[in-house]
Amino acid sequence: MFLRVDKLQIELPAPKRQDPNAGAALQELLGGKYGEMSTLGNYLFQSFNFRSKSKLRPFYGLVAAITAEELGHVELVSNGVAMLNNGPDGDDDETDGGDVSGAPYEAMKDIRLAAAFYSNAGGATPVNSNGASWNADMVTTTGNVIVDLLHNFHLECGARLHKLRVYESLTDPTGREVCGYLLVRGSVHAHAYALALKKITGVEIEKMLPTPNIPLGNIPECQKYLNAGSHRRLYTFSPDDYAEIAGVWGGGETALPGDPPGELEVVEGMPEGGKIHQLTGVPSAFTPDYAPEEMFEIAEKLYQKSR
Amino acid sequence: MFLRVDKLQIELPAPKRQDPNAGAALQELLGGKYGEMSTLGNYLFQSFNFRSKSKLRPFYGLVAAITAEELGHVELVSNGVAMLNNGPDGDDDETDGGDVSGAPYEAMKDIRLAAAFYSNAGGATPVNSNGASWNADMVTTTGNVIVDLLHNFHLECGARLHKLRVYESLTDPTGREVCGYLLVRGSVHAHAYALALKKITGVEIEKMLPTPNIPLGNIPECQKYLNAGSHRRLYTFSPDDYAEIAGVWGGGETALPGDPPGELEVVEGMPEGGKIHQLTGVPSAFTPDYAPEEMFEIAEKLYQKSR
Amino acid sequence: MFLRVDKLQIELPAPKRQDPNAGAALQELLGGKYGEMSTLGNYLFQSFNFRSKSKLRPFYGLVAAITAEELGHVELVSNGVAMLNNGPDGDDDETDGGDVSGAPYEAMKDIRLAAAFYSNAGGATPVNSNGASWNADMVTTTGNVIVDLLHNFHLECGARLHKLRVYESLTDPTGREVCGYLLVRGSVHAHAYALALKKITGVEIEKMLPTPNIPLGNIPECQKYLNAGSHRRLYTFSPDDYAEIAGVWGGGETALPGDPPGELEVVEGMPEGGKIHQLTGVPSAFTPDYAPEEMFEIAEKLYQKSR
Amino acid sequence: MFLRVDKLQIELPAPKRQDPNAGAALQELLGGKYGEMSTLGNYLFQSFNFRSKSKLRPFYGLVAAITAEELGHVELVSNGVAMLNNGPDGDDDETDGGDVSGAPYEAMKDIRLAAAFYSNAGGATPVNSNGASWNADMVTTTGNVIVDLLHNFHLECGARLHKLRVYESLTDPTGREVCGYLLVRGSVHAHAYALALKKITGVEIEKMLPTPNIPLGNIPECQKYLNAGSHRRLYTFSPDDYAEIAGVWGGGETALPGDPPGELEVVEGMPEGGKIHQLTGVPSAFTPDYAPEEMFEIAEKLYQKSR
Amino acid sequence: MFLRVDKLQIELPAPKRQDPNAGAALQELLGGKYGEMSTLGNYLFQSFNFRSKSKLRPFYGLVAAITAEELGHVELVSNGVAMLNNGPDGDDDETDGGDVSGAPYEAMKDIRLAAAFYSNAGGATPVNSNGASWNADMVTTTGNVIVDLLHNFHLECGARLHKLRVYESLTDPTGREVCGYLLVRGSVHAHAYALALKKITGVEIEKMLPTPNIPLGNIPECQKYLNAGSHRRLYTFSPDDYAEIAGVWGGGETALPGDPPGELEVVEGMPEGGKIHQLTGVPSAFTPDYAPEEMFEIAEKLYQKSR
Amino acid sequence: MFLRVDKLQIELPAPKRQDPNAGAALQELLGGKYGEMSTLGNYLFQSFNFRSKSKLRPFYGLVAAITAEELGHVELVSNGVAMLNNGPDGDDDETDGGDVSGAPYEAMKDIRLAAAFYSNAGGATPVNSNGASWNADMVTTTGNVIVDLLHNFHLECGARLHKLRVYESLTDPTGREVCGYLLVRGSVHAHAYALALKKITGVEIEKMLPTPNIPLGNIPECQKYLNAGSHRRLYTFSPDDYAEIAGVWGGGETALPGDPPGELEVVEGMPEGGKIHQLTGVPSAFTPDYAPEEMFEIAEKLYQKSR
Repeated sequence: MFLRVDKLQIELPAPKRQDPNAGAALQELLGGKYGEMSTLGNYLFQSFNFRSKSKLRPFYGLVAAITAEELGHVELVSNGVAMLNNGPDGDDDETDGGDVSGAPYEAMKDIRLAAAFYSNAGGATPVNSNGASWNADMVTTTGNVIVDLLHNFHLECGARLHKLRVYESLTDPTGREVCGYLLVRGSVHAHAYALALKKITGVEIEKMLPTPNIPLGNIPECQKYLNAGSHRRLYTFSPDDYAEIAGVWGGGETALPGDPPGELEVVEGMPEGGKIHQLTGVPSAFTPDYAPEEMFEIAEKLYQKSR
Repeated sequence: MFLRVDKLQIELPAPKRQDPNAGAALQELLGGKYGEMSTLGNYLFQSFNFRSKSKLRPFYGLVAAITAEELGHVELVSNGVAMLNNGPDGDDDETDGGDVSGAPYEAMKDIRLAAAFYSNAGGATPVNSNGASWNADMVTTTGNVIVDLLHNFHLECGARLHKLRVYESLTDPTGREVCGYLLVRGSVHAHAYALALKKITGVEIEKMLPTPNIPLGNIPECQKYLNAGSHRRLYTFSPDDYAEIAGVWGGGETALPGDPPGELEVVEGMPEGGKIHQLTGVPSAFTPDYAPEEMFEIAEKLYQKSR
Repeated sequence: MFLRVDKLQIELPAPKRQDPNAGAALQELLGGKYGEMSTLGNYLFQSFNFRSKSKLRPFYGLVAAITAEELGHVELVSNGVAMLNNGPDGDDDETDGGDVSGAPYEAMKDIRLAAAFYSNAGGATPVNSNGASWNADMVTTTGNVIVDLLHNFHLECGARLHKLRVYESLTDPTGREVCGYLLVRGSVHAHAYALALKKITGVEIEKMLPTPNIPLGNIPECQKYLNAGSHRRLYTFSPDDYAEIAGVWGGGETALPGDPPGELEVVEGMPEGGKIHQLTGVPSAFTPDYAPEEMFEIAEKLYQKSR
Repeated sequence: MFLRVDKLQIELPAPKRQDPNAGAALQELLGGKYGEMSTLGNYLFQSFNFRSKSKLRPFYGLVAAITAEELGHVELVSNGVAMLNNGPDGDDDETDGGDVSGAPYEAMKDIRLAAAFYSNAGGATPVNSNGASWNADMVTTTGNVIVDLLHNFHLECGARLHKLRVYESLTDPTGREVCGYLLVRGSVHAHAYALALKKITGVEIEKMLPTPNIPLGNIPECQKYLNAGSHRRLYTFSPDDYAEIAGVWGGGETALPGDPPGELEVVEGMPEGGKIHQLTGVPSAFTPDYAPEEMFEIAEKLYQKSR
Repeated sequence: MFLRVDKLQIELPAPKRQDPNAGAALQELLGGKYGEMSTLGNYLFQSFNFRSKSKLRPFYGLVAAITAEELGHVELVSNGVAMLNNGPDGDDDETDGGDVSGAPYEAMKDIRLAAAFYSNAGGATPVNSNGASWNADMVTTTGNVIVDLLHNFHLECGARLHKLRVYESLTDPTGREVCGYLLVRGSVHAHAYALALKKITGVEIEKMLPTPNIPLGNIPECQKYLNAGSHRRLYTFSPDDYAEIAGVWGGGETALPGDPPGELEVVEGMPEGGKIHQLTGVPSAFTPDYAPEEMFEIAEKLYQKSR
Repeated sequence: MFLRVDKLQIELPAPKRQDPNAGAALQELLGGKYGEMSTLGNYLFQSFNFRSKSKLRPFYGLVAAITAEELGHVELVSNGVAMLNNGPDGDDDETDGGDVSGAPYEAMKDIRLAAAFYSNAGGATPVNSNGASWNADMVTTTGNVIVDLLHNFHLECGARLHKLRVYESLTDPTGREVCGYLLVRGSVHAHAYALALKKITGVEIEKMLPTPNIPLGNIPECQKYLNAGSHRRLYTFSPDDYAEIAGVWGGGETALPGDPPGELEVVEGMPEGGKIHQLTGVPSAFTPDYAPEEMFEIAEKLYQKSR
């Protein structure tokens, strides 16, 4: 079972301007082969299909707990996409007057992923930066623990590379913050899968990290997460389960050489998180609708009634 | 953010025999257009992309909370698939001797979804009962609240129809229990989206239920859930959030006419749940590996260390 | 069986200039999930697969007749796409000299759907505005009348939303006229499916219209169709069949509140229609060929012979 | 524009028994690369995108008129699929009692295209015999007349080959009749495109026919159509248009050497056609619904009112 | 550039009987995510896109040379598929009489991949064992050497697992021989990529082999290749290039511990290879055609003329 | 079996500037329906699946030998794509300083195929100019020789049309040279398939050439290949096999009327070829890595060791 908490894993800065091509760039980290839908989909189905769960608890727990974190990553990138497509935080009481006849969205015809406006009003969907859908070909779940863990290690390394390149193409703080945070957390996951593989096979595969060969410290947006020790911390993302991942992550092992030093630690639960930004409705785009005032009023009454 | 709990939403009976075509049938409820990946994918992205969240809280909360329940449905169907593909609960200490040369899996060449054995060792993946992948075409997120809710209402009605047909093709108790439970919960979701639409538009669309026109009471596997009142209960699936869905579900409204009577109620948190069955490893299929004994021993030590 | 008439459903204005990205925008209404290929595909296969046709004639007839209209919508949007990709109506006798070596199509390398030029010379194909193909996942045909009609009602509402957004991104009169007409006809179809559902279930679902919540009267390009009463008219699109749709559409029911008032009526046959624009050949793009003069001459002789 | 006539192009015999794998076989002729969706899709979009229509009228008319016939082929194969999936013509008043709990559809779990039952109740959809979707990759529309006609000629030859193989795998009269008729009409289309190419290029490409190298006369189910001269007849499938195709088909040219001799002729309009079989509802499969009696009664009243 | 040699990499035994589901099983090793189209596609595009080729010659050469071997693997599996679909080696002079009307291929309607018969006459195509297409999502080419090599190492391990499972489902000697050979060669490739990674990163990743954890010696069909030392041998598959792969493979390194001992060696050129089996034509399936005698005669004359 | 030679089929000029949209344009000739992956895929699988190979040797040999040439075409276009995406030939010793934090790739967010940068660092992949994947729907292999050859003839004509249009959109010499060469070679293949069809059927289908109706002589980039007689030359692309294609190509037949006159000839082996350009690494894009110096040093040592 899964529970949901109405927060993002981190506090995101609001975009400075609307930039649909930046939103589309971030889609590569959502629906691309090495995007968050893929990390989620792989670990989700691997955790369901895991054999001999009770005999392999620290390894099963690792895949299961990281799955929950990946759900939050999908959420974070999706929020980033929608925010960049919509622009600075706004005010629902300011409307655009409601004349739809003057081609108010002419600019949308020339953006890269025009369908993201036409069909989704700038919302995120599980497609890559070219608009191609995420799909089951991006899921590896073999039932063999070594093959799955090795796949996951390679996936996190590849994902790191893709995050770096998307980061390098963005100037807006929202997208850059998403990338910075995911780079730190992706490094944790790569490290964790490496340690799991080392426990089982004896191969010190964590010595391949960082791949690509650039320390997190070179990315300004990673600094605050490094300072806070996020790179040494694995969360159980569970009220009561998965603490046994400490068998893999911790027990005296330490941060990767290029990162701020310290012991690896398991945190039961989740990070503090940050607020979910409002996506201001745009009546002329029919979000939440053309004339939403009555809907707002109904919702307000229902909300009061529910307290 | 999301948290994970190491339980299924219900207790499932173990399969009586291995039946890969039954597992493949259940895949229609996982990766088909009206399957759980679709309900999950729709509500997940709709909740990320929801406009004017704070002004529309009971409606936003409804989509957000049901998303979390759908994650558990994906988990439940996936467990059902894997269990049916693997057969009765087993014992990891009994192995098959390890001679792989005598074509021990000849039968797998004739099952409908042979790739599910070859690539996934009988594990679940996001494909339908013909092996076609789930994809972004099955996600509707328009940013318009009425269109999205109407889509969701239709989706839950369609999903109910598909669950009924899969149910009617299964004889094994595992698959039938999955269907019975999902039918009850799907009815709750259809009812909830109907009430949301009624609040906003005034149209008594819940009077279309049940669609198709068969009461849950005709399905033996639904009885215990009806008796327990599951059809009147919407969970927040959250430690602290989404209680405002009581603005939509409840407030004096009652169960659908054909179902056991009573008031609708919101339950903060989640159901009690049931255990996740062990999927016994099969060394000759290399799950978790060909000779997993050493791996088991390592895992046991790491587990002990983590306590 | 189907018959074809060499006219469009309406008279379209010629484009003022070539605008491939506008043509690509219109593709969302052709091959997108809520585009005309989808409405066509859904009703086409639903009508083939309809159970108990003779006992459910007004409902079967409704789906069957609207299918024929949707064929004309696919034709209309496709003509719009091809016209926008090709520019103003031209004259086949003016050619471009035939020097292909000077990169005469350099601009095509930077348009959004470059493949539409390279492979289709600007012709329409069943893809969306991002170039992703229409496919069977966009077809719902369940055999259950309520689920199918409910799906269709939601589909027409969703399609209306998408048409509005495409309309809002276009400045050229060709594309805007296509949208204006389709908005009126889509409203008729949503209304008709709503009435069908109401007849069967008693739910006044037509009160949800218009969705999104903007009256057609706000769209200048809809005016002439509203003035002509198109919003009150359902065609049989058949020489002799489907008149029984009057059991659903008409019988005293009237136009939607926000639209010009009047009774709903069934028209046997089809609208008057408008001419199909010539798509002038462009020899340097090898349409109809590099040096088509001889082909024109042959065609002229064959045409004369056929009279 | 298109009109619809509530008949099939021919009279089909009812199936002798339900045979879902035979229905699935016929899907290859519907949604396969060389199936009727492909011939339809190619000619439909080619006719929309045709350049210099007025100067190339006999050729444009040929593609446009055959498009309309292909719509009827899609209809014919779809009816065949649905009939084979459903079995002998039945009687809506005989119902199956309504107990859905005894796994009445256990057999459906083992058919090749299980999703066709679960999602479509045995209805036809645009997929091939393996359940893979038809898509835009199967449409060639280049704007170049020679390339398009050459493609079409090859397509009809390939389609003939596929029809032959499907025919050879079917024993039921319904499917065999569909194949027999389509073989004759496909030969007409191959012949017609060959003649068009010959008129333009001078190459006697019709001498390649029949491809594959087997005369229609070897197929018993083709006999009555040959006897009736169907192989020499091209219909305009239009109330008033496309008669100029006589410039290509006819003018003294004759049937292919291996077929019954005679002159080619153009028939304005359409063939007489045959009745559409009832697809009997199956309440336990929720078609048209679980308890459709009230729906039948409503429909009957509406039908009476509409006369 | 590439050259072709009219031989398979090994001598294959003829099938003992026609077994289309066995052919379909082998398709998983052709068009599945971990099949030969994937290894080919990955290395082909990686070798094209390789940066700093001259500075990284032993690594570039490794990817480039293995690409050529993979082409032969695609060929080998494809031949296996076609052979199993067609049955024992036959004699083109024996024909089946030519009566196509008696449903000679009724059995084909019930095989798993019916489209493989209808469209391909039992020929191989780039699809997996469920009929889903190979595609670009199965290609990783990042431009980063470590990520690509790590991907390739994981790919070869995963491919080994899939080959083992397909092997375990086959009883026919043709398919088993294909698997046995590919298992040995796949081990070589996994070993080679491991050594490349070790040279660059220092991580002894080859110690993870064999994955899954079963020695090749347990597979009878691998024995002759092990005896011949194939597991220690990397071919340049080139007339003159790529000998520099000896910088990675060899230089004193030895076979994996569980395999027959010995030094690794590079062989310039290719293995001796085996004959390509005739796929006997089947006139009633129109291969090479219905009445091919004249075609054979023409071919014979042209062949004589060419000597 | 296949061998590889470390050269391109021709010498390509270096690009004058980086132009990702030109690279994306060239992708249409790589992964589009009429691109080189399609010609390769068709002939590759047709040659594997060819029936009665020994009796039909000149025809089998033709398909088999052209397959090998197509591999080189895939290589050539891929190199062209990667070169255009990367810009002028560079020097690996010049690096960009390594500061990745200043959004050095901001421009990549606005290119048409952004995923080609993010995931592939500008490398080629099997997708078309809109980013849609090449797939098995683009492969026709029927087992019938006439249908396959006719398909191939149409494919080469269609491919010629697409190459012309891509050529007309490019200004950079690299892309234009690729197109010029492929136009000449594509003409040879169209001509060769035409002759094969003529031998078997007697139809002078080569008289349809050139299609589209423009002589190669109008394309400046074709001149040097015409002057060298490339249009009259078919290579065996094999050390020892396929010389029997002289039964089809040659024997006194001559060049097409519009091309420089002369006899057709078969050349055993391959053309001389040209060098493969270096794709300079870009550390800030992590190609071959962020700080590749150590990797270069290791490679150099390994290379020396291998001599």
